[in-house]
Amino acid sequence: MDAYDELLIRLKDIDLVSQIGGLLGWDQEVLMPPKAAALRAEQLSWISKTGHEKLTNPRIGELLEQLEQRDDLNQVQMGNLRLTRDSYRKATKLPTAFVAEMAMHKSKSQISWAEARSKNDFSIFRDDLVKMVEMSRKKADYLGYEGVRYDALLDLYESGLTVSKVDPLFAGLRENVAPLVKKVIENGKKPDMSWVHENTWSKEGQEGLSQSISEAIGFDFQAGRRDASTHPFCGGPNPDDVRWTTRYDETDPFGSLYGSMHETGHGLYEQGRPRNLDFQPAGSANGLGVHESQSRLWENQIGRSKEFCEWSLPLWKKYFPKQMEGVSAENLWRSVNFVEPSLIRVEADEATYNLHIMIRYEIEKKLIAGEIEVDDLPDAWDNMYQEFLGISAPNRTLGVLQDIHWSFGAFGYFPTYTLGNLYSAQLLNAAKKELPNHDQLIKNGNFTPLLEWMRKNVHSRGSIIEPSALIEEATGSPPSPDDFVKYLQDKMQYLYELTS
Amino acid sequence: MDAYDELLIRLKDIDLVSQIGGLLGWDQEVLMPPKAAALRAEQLSWISKTGHEKLTNPRIGELLEQLEQRDDLNQVQMGNLRLTRDSYRKATKLPTAFVAEMAMHKSKSQISWAEARSKNDFSIFRDDLVKMVEMSRKKADYLGYEGVRYDALLDLYESGLTVSKVDPLFAGLRENVAPLVKKVIENGKKPDMSWVHENTWSKEGQEGLSQSISEAIGFDFQAGRRDASTHPFCGGPNPDDVRWTTRYDETDPFGSLYGSMHETGHGLYEQGRPRNLDFQPAGSANGLGVHESQSRLWENQIGRSKEFCEWSLPLWKKYFPKQMEGVSAENLWRSVNFVEPSLIRVEADEATYNLHIMIRYEIEKKLIAGEIEVDDLPDAWDNMYQEFLGISAPNRTLGVLQDIHWSFGAFGYFPTYTLGNLYSAQLLNAAKKELPNHDQLIKNGNFTPLLEWMRKNVHSRGSIIEPSALIEEATGSPPSPDDFVKYLQDKMQYLYELTS
Repeated sequence: MDAYDELLIRLKDIDLVSQIGGLLGWDQEVLMPPKAAALRAEQLSWISKTGHEKLTNPRIGELLEQLEQRDDLNQVQMGNLRLTRDSYRKATKLPTAFVAEMAMHKSKSQISWAEARSKNDFSIFRDDLVKMVEMSRKKADYLGYEGVRYDALLDLYESGLTVSKVDPLFAGLRENVAPLVKKVIENGKKPDMSWVHENTWSKEGQEGLSQSISEAIGFDFQAGRRDASTHPFCGGPNPDDVRWTTRYDETDPFGSLYGSMHETGHGLYEQGRPRNLDFQPAGSANGLGVHESQSRLWENQIGRSKEFCEWSLPLWKKYFPKQMEGVSAENLWRSVNFVEPSLIRVEADEATYNLHIMIRYEIEKKLIAGEIEVDDLPDAWDNMYQEFLGISAPNRTLGVLQDIHWSFGAFGYFPTYTLGNLYSAQLLNAAKKELPNHDQLIKNGNFTPLLEWMRKNVHSRGSIIEPSALIEEATGSPPSPDDFVKYLQDKMQYLYELTS
Repeated sequence: MDAYDELLIRLKDIDLVSQIGGLLGWDQEVLMPPKAAALRAEQLSWISKTGHEKLTNPRIGELLEQLEQRDDLNQVQMGNLRLTRDSYRKATKLPTAFVAEMAMHKSKSQISWAEARSKNDFSIFRDDLVKMVEMSRKKADYLGYEGVRYDALLDLYESGLTVSKVDPLFAGLRENVAPLVKKVIENGKKPDMSWVHENTWSKEGQEGLSQSISEAIGFDFQAGRRDASTHPFCGGPNPDDVRWTTRYDETDPFGSLYGSMHETGHGLYEQGRPRNLDFQPAGSANGLGVHESQSRLWENQIGRSKEFCEWSLPLWKKYFPKQMEGVSAENLWRSVNFVEPSLIRVEADEATYNLHIMIRYEIEKKLIAGEIEVDDLPDAWDNMYQEFLGISAPNRTLGVLQDIHWSFGAFGYFPTYTLGNLYSAQLLNAAKKELPNHDQLIKNGNFTPLLEWMRKNVHSRGSIIEPSALIEEATGSPPSPDDFVKYLQDKMQYLYELTS
């Protein structure tokens, strides 16, 4: 058999394991009965062990070496080789004992983080975090890197990402978005939010609204589902079975809807993957940054636009006729764009969100480099929140302990959230050049042309080329903060009547 | 490592594959989006292939041979050996090419069966059924048998079952139940069913009733779920995650409730498995007959008893206050015990049900032995329905084409339904000897003592000994139709005022 064909057979085997794991994970978050947790962990550990064994089979290494000699491979084949080599390298470079120790420590330190958070006492988490930082540094050393150690961790969540690529992006945000937020605050204008707070918003109405809007955008419910879960996410086994969730709060109708649009964006990306590359790494979504660009596109760039509010107002009135009495599209639009510096990242608005991420990025970078240590974290956190957002957490729970990520060693993950925001603005600008009547299309609820543009330029390209190359291919420019900054400046100036 | 310990490790690996398959199968029936079917089939085929590879690993054969020499094994260890040898033998005796051909033919002939059924034309299914019968005979020959060829197929669904064991059971039913049904019909008395048919029964009310009764009987919803599906079933991966379904018809409140009690009975058995034997074959439920005894116990022996109707009437009135106005426990009890010969097995009452099974058993026995052929089937079917139930199907759809089983070669499966009915009566009689106030307990809704008896004598015994030995151990007698016949005679005589 041809070496490439043999590789594809092995990759299909690995992909099926991962599809099955996707279903088990979804079920665990959405509807598994509580007592099933222990045996579900056994099943997931079996899945993970089986996938790892298949990926690290020495035959994969032999096939890669053979194929890397060949010069007759096309772009897709080269993509599959690059991605398989990357996974194989990551899976084989970490000693089994280290992987097992890390897995054990993840469980342990998630528990101490949760306790520290609930008791508002950083010291409870301190020792476990120290060990987690040490292990993460060690992990980076095992994986290897060319520039700085943190690069090895960034690369885990977006292939090819490095500090030298991320720094300029955050510099652009720091220089432009931080002053913009200051202006909004100084200006003191606030939208009228009374219509939101003075009403209750039934779960049934929110479900209807979320479902209608997700369908209108283009999510295929014959190849996916909407459910509820504590932490909204998009999962499921494959493009024919994409499952997203949201959550409902009867005092706030925005959380479920914008959560639904966010997860719908992830879901559309999954449903748009190139189906001739089923079971192949080149056919999968292209890392966390690009994934986040698709969720943020629909949640923010589209979902919080004036045109979208104009189109969706009748739907709001259909599901909430009484609550929406006298509310105009303009009211709706201003309310969904309320900007206010706040302590909690996951509740942050579009303008301040990336400052939360920038703070985490700067801290992680120094922490992994050994320029600061765990004991410096709480103060570093508070100082940066004061500097960039003008606020200080009254306690650790609302400060350095708010996110779960570090407790399971996910250093390098946060920056992909901001990459997503930047990519979404850059992609939308590129799409608009080919869709000159974009605003009118959104106002008419005709989302197909934009979705088709994303299908063609992003979704159908899978992971054939690296994420930053994909952005450049789709937009004509390498990743940059400029489009996002411009978008935010224009919007804030108009909404908050700023003088530029 | 000790050979027994090594075997347990391998068995755990196999069991985890099967647990995962259990979840995939449940999801497919209950909530998978329609377009996911093709890739779900790939996942399930991967599961099946992986399980088969692990089971037929020659190392299992070596370990079995070593362990079968030992004389220091306890009952559980011997049970595990017996069951593993049995699975290993079945998995290795069928040539891979034959298994693949059979799988292909199953898919094909299920499609032609469905078409034949919908078009009421046996000839569409005829050729595929001929081939399926031939393959099933061949399968029996591969598997081997001591008595008759059909024994090899019976043994697939209840370990150790043979024609020489089943024949006397059905003889007892033929001699006693068939005449009893004739008397009921001749007698002509019918319960008042108007209160059922003149009302509509909301899905919400039926859900509430099913849920309350399942909880009252003892199903642990922290370790399981209730959902809806087209074909009710009980599945899920393991005793901590037992998932049963029912279906709702707003013109008939009995289908969902008695379906729920049936599946709850299966679920209680799964939840009661011996947890110190997790991942071991000896810890699993003991074949289809014993499983059906647990579902039938709660559905019929308990659920259609007068005492249960007395206890449950207030619940009926809680969920259906208007519909149940003026309905007494006696009305309810008579209505849920309405006996009438009908053409469709799955809609049959307690008295006629086993006659449907007996007909199928007699036909299968002759068909596998080669005493009749596929072309004789339609007439044989109609003649036996006339003889034992006094009715004839007006067409093939309501006759020989009604069940799916033969289309996928499940010859030997039907008898386990009747075994379940007989076992349930025999087990309940044995339990009553230790629970002299049984009727009062049920009337009070105190189901715990009966459930505890089943836990101790059936559930916790797993598959340590063979099904018929388990029935004898629990009841003091080998399987027999006597208790069931007596139960039915008493009930029918009272309900229909028969002269004995």
